[in-house]
Amino acid sequence: MTQDLAPGQLLARGVCRHLLQHGFVGIEEVVPAPGLRVDVMALGPKGEIWIVECKSSRDDYVSDRKWQNYLEWADRFFWAVGPDFPTDLLPPDTGLIIADGYGAEILRMGPESKLAGARRKVITQKFARHAALRLRAFRDPGVTASGICP
Amino acid sequence: MTQDLAPGQLLARGVCRHLLQHGFVGIEEVVPAPGLRVDVMALGPKGEIWIVECKSSRDDYVSDRKWQNYLEWADRFFWAVGPDFPTDLLPPDTGLIIADGYGAEILRMGPESKLAGARRKVITQKFARHAALRLRAFRDPGVTASGICP
Repeated sequence: MTQDLAPGQLLARGVCRHLLQHGFVGIEEVVPAPGLRVDVMALGPKGEIWIVECKSSRDDYVSDRKWQNYLEWADRFFWAVGPDFPTDLLPPDTGLIIADGYGAEILRMGPESKLAGARRKVITQKFARHAALRLRAFRDPGVTASGICP
Repeated sequence: MTQDLAPGQLLARGVCRHLLQHGFVGIEEVVPAPGLRVDVMALGPKGEIWIVECKSSRDDYVSDRKWQNYLEWADRFFWAVGPDFPTDLLPPDTGLIIADGYGAEILRMGPESKLAGARRKVITQKFARHAALRLRAFRDPGVTASGICP
C-alpha cells in the first residue's frame, strides 16, 4: 500500500496513527469550506478539532497560500513534516509534528484557539458526513465516496 | 461480498444505499450508550439523526427488548424489514422501510421527536468518531477499528 501514496499522504498516515494515541481520530482531505481542503482533520475525545497540514518539502510549504484560512476551522493547528524538513521556516506560533509513513511525534503543540459553538457544530457535522461517506464507499462497492455532496 | 453478510447486515446495506438518496449518510452498528447498539444510524444534511433497526424475521423482531431505548437517541426511528415480513406486528407509530441487500424504500416516515441540543452534540460526535475510526481501519492496515475507544 505504501508505494501507492504520495509523500504528503504518507505523512498523513503516520500523523493519523500517532493521533490515535492521543485519542484523536483523523481523516484525510476534509473540505471545511468551498476552496479549502485540509490534509488531516482530527476529532478528539471531547469534540476538539485539530487540523494538520502535511508538507513533504520546502517547496510544498512555500507554495501554500491557504494555510492561514484553516486556522479558523480548528482548535489547534499543526504542520507535519519529515525529519529532514527545515523547520526554521515554519511560523513559531503553530504546532509541529515530525512524521513518516509509519508514525509521528508532536514536537510542539499548536496554540489553542477554541472554536465558537456554532462553528464547532458545523465542522463536526462535516467531519461526520465526510467520514461516513468514505466509509460507505469501502463497505459497499455499490456506493462511491462522491455519491452525494458531503 | 453479499454472501459474507448476515440477513440483517444485508438489509442495513440496502437501507444505507437508499438513505443516500435522501441525503442521509448511514453507518452500521453504532453504540449511542453502553449496552445499546443500533443497526444503522444516519446523519442528514442538516444534522438530523435517524436510527433504523433491521429485522430479518419475525423472531428477530419479537426477541428485541431494547428498541424503545433507541428512540431517545434519534430524531426519527424506523424499522427495516424484508418484503415478506409481517409488518402488522410493528408499532404503527414508528417508521417503516422495506429493504433488501440492494436497496430500500421508505413506506412510512418515523414521527419526528427532535433531539435536544446537548444530546444531538453527543451523538453527532459519537457518530463522527465511530465513522472515522472504521474508516482508518480500511485506509490503514496498521490500525484496527478497536484501536481506541470510539
